[in-house]
Amino acid sequence: MITPRRPAGFNELLPADQMALNAMISIIRLSYEQHGYAPIETPALELSPVLLAKEGGETAKQVYRFSKGDNDLAMRFDLTIPLARYTAEHYHELTFPFRRYQIQEVWRAEKPQAGRYRQFYQCDIDIVGVDDITADADVLITARNTLKALDLKDAVLKISHRGLLTGFLADKKLDKKNTEVLRIIDKLDKQGEKVVATELAKLGLKKNDITELLKLVTIAGPAKDVLKKLPTIKQPAFTKALLELTQLNKLLTAAGLKSSEFVFDLSIARGLDYYTGMVFETVLTKHQNIGSVCSGGRYDNLLEQYHKEHLPGVGASIGLSRLFSAIKDSLSDAPANPAQVMVISFESQQDAYALSVVKTLHQSNLNAFLYPGHDKIGKQLKYADKLGITFVALVGSYEVEKEMITIKNLKSGEQKQMKLSKAVQFIRKNL
Amino acid sequence: MITPRRPAGFNELLPADQMALNAMISIIRLSYEQHGYAPIETPALELSPVLLAKEGGETAKQVYRFSKGDNDLAMRFDLTIPLARYTAEHYHELTFPFRRYQIQEVWRAEKPQAGRYRQFYQCDIDIVGVDDITADADVLITARNTLKALDLKDAVLKISHRGLLTGFLADKKLDKKNTEVLRIIDKLDKQGEKVVATELAKLGLKKNDITELLKLVTIAGPAKDVLKKLPTIKQPAFTKALLELTQLNKLLTAAGLKSSEFVFDLSIARGLDYYTGMVFETVLTKHQNIGSVCSGGRYDNLLEQYHKEHLPGVGASIGLSRLFSAIKDSLSDAPANPAQVMVISFESQQDAYALSVVKTLHQSNLNAFLYPGHDKIGKQLKYADKLGITFVALVGSYEVEKEMITIKNLKSGEQKQMKLSKAVQFIRKNL
Repeated sequence: MITPRRPAGFNELLPADQMALNAMISIIRLSYEQHGYAPIETPALELSPVLLAKEGGETAKQVYRFSKGDNDLAMRFDLTIPLARYTAEHYHELTFPFRRYQIQEVWRAEKPQAGRYRQFYQCDIDIVGVDDITADADVLITARNTLKALDLKDAVLKISHRGLLTGFLADKKLDKKNTEVLRIIDKLDKQGEKVVATELAKLGLKKNDITELLKLVTIAGPAKDVLKKLPTIKQPAFTKALLELTQLNKLLTAAGLKSSEFVFDLSIARGLDYYTGMVFETVLTKHQNIGSVCSGGRYDNLLEQYHKEHLPGVGASIGLSRLFSAIKDSLSDAPANPAQVMVISFESQQDAYALSVVKTLHQSNLNAFLYPGHDKIGKQLKYADKLGITFVALVGSYEVEKEMITIKNLKSGEQKQMKLSKAVQFIRKNL
Repeated sequence: MITPRRPAGFNELLPADQMALNAMISIIRLSYEQHGYAPIETPALELSPVLLAKEGGETAKQVYRFSKGDNDLAMRFDLTIPLARYTAEHYHELTFPFRRYQIQEVWRAEKPQAGRYRQFYQCDIDIVGVDDITADADVLITARNTLKALDLKDAVLKISHRGLLTGFLADKKLDKKNTEVLRIIDKLDKQGEKVVATELAKLGLKKNDITELLKLVTIAGPAKDVLKKLPTIKQPAFTKALLELTQLNKLLTAAGLKSSEFVFDLSIARGLDYYTGMVFETVLTKHQNIGSVCSGGRYDNLLEQYHKEHLPGVGASIGLSRLFSAIKDSLSDAPANPAQVMVISFESQQDAYALSVVKTLHQSNLNAFLYPGHDKIGKQLKYADKLGITFVALVGSYEVEKEMITIKNLKSGEQKQMKLSKAVQFIRKNL
């Protein structure tokens, strides 16, 4: 006998929770489709030399990589690099701008911790092949509408633009330190201004520049206010960023986003190198501790490693597994079975009639099944109750003879004998 | 620059095909839920010593297995063993009979060939914890109804029962050769009676027994006829099988299965050891060449390796990826984007208005997006047409001023200017 157990960091759900998670996936899928994104899926396994072409350091260490036969294989660890590989491989079969969504699991051998798993769902959208601010707006609007569809009314998009910092640093002749400065700024929210100032000094920035920089990146608030507070910096990158943010504010407002639903926050840097324009994160004000639940931004060239075409794009990703584990306690008790009616047959002579009852319930678009076997009625009722099924339909010899069923509402206790056609209406009315 | 490519045997779909596959998954999911099965998902990676506790030979060779840190890991290669592990691990949290469905990918390093992939979807249902023929009927009915929901009207369930052969062999004092005989019989359909007879002779069966056995296992046809044709064999296993098949015929008929939709076919042996009662396969009469698209049966003890409880069960599995690749050419041309309306904004001054149009379309439950940027109208129309989007809504300065839009039906060529509220009705009517 072997103890049944899973590898550390690999979560799995009981049916009620799985139903709740599936409901969320379904909402995200429908919302992405409503916003005109088409689905793709990429394989769990890719060729390591292809998938890891650009990755080094931390990420590469976390990848599940192994050999099988002649193949050096790696498991999907995000949905962006597979999108790049997919887009390059199918370049001539795709229509650009390519609007795709992808809801799949990814695997990373991270240190397991609360709410962090080694297998988790990502739900990504991207518009590839266009550099226009309406695409950035589209991604942000879709992200907000999707979170709203998930009933996350406390979601706030925090938006910034890489060009502001780039412009500022160019103005100070610090262009070459762009990446390092970004990485340090990214820590602002966790480590505070003092630590950041010290690190910037270590990097060789002058005291004055550090003060100005910190003043810049701590600007945050309603879009209109932030646009007024921004300094004047005559650098093309800065000017472009300012124009784009101004237009974004107009577009998001036109699309119905309230000023409480998105802010401009210049501390949002996003650690990842590949962002080049708008960047954003999303916090739930009631669950600040879980960090960003939806992040993304604009990148310059998705296909870099794989293809000569220059394809800019913009995207967003919802970290579903973490989001789910954060909010699942606040979800109302979900049933552990999707059935609305369970049919009970008293004796095997009534099984055939009971199955014809199930058939009729199905034809009336109700979810139903026959309890298999003839355990004691009490046990069967308890079973239906435990699964969260509202109605039980009892079938004995009397019911078969009279072509009726006895319906019991397990929530109210009400019990009635009636014709099947009446029962369907009765159930519908009381669901 | 690295050539973007996938490992051999790993398929991926273009958006139109992915949408068609997703539609099938969605139908299967809804059908399983309608029949009262609850969803679970198990991790892609399991601990090898747990997952491969019982597996030897061919299957073990096909498993993607590797080490990461201290863990000896194996990728999911079917949904049955993970179900056993899950059921044993969560035994005290589950309610029995446990009715679960699971739609996930599995991975096997098989030799790639047409319609056979190294990553493919399985769609399983099982009822665990009960040995009652209504459960067998439930699984068969659900399988047939699900294939019917997929519009596979040519699906025929071929049902048999392990007890017939077991009883026959017991009667001939050949009990000990049960497994080998099963394996040989399983080849009947591919290799024919002669080869099977030769192999049975090699196994040591007498000529007379071989003749009788072949006569038995070639009985096939409408359930009623087969029940009449069966020989009388006074062995408990045979008698039980006969009783169960007789009852199955009644139950399936009561549930609305026509005699053309299921047959009893005693050549169905199912190679797998663990089946102990009813077994079945499903052929599409219009696609015989792809083999069984849905198979399963009754097993004696799911938890064997993991738990002291004795849990019999019955299940079925749809091999979706193979099914999809077989029928996808017969599906009508699917669009490559879920949007029903694409909005075109003539100039950036109209972008905000255009996004408010998109918002209204979304609120009217239409799928819509704004084409990002301001490419030439001809290019944008061609784009919408290529994606299979029916309606285009044009927004220029005139439309903004008059608070109207110009709607163009790309299928009929019809074009009209109207108020947005009218447009929604117009689109709905012509979708």
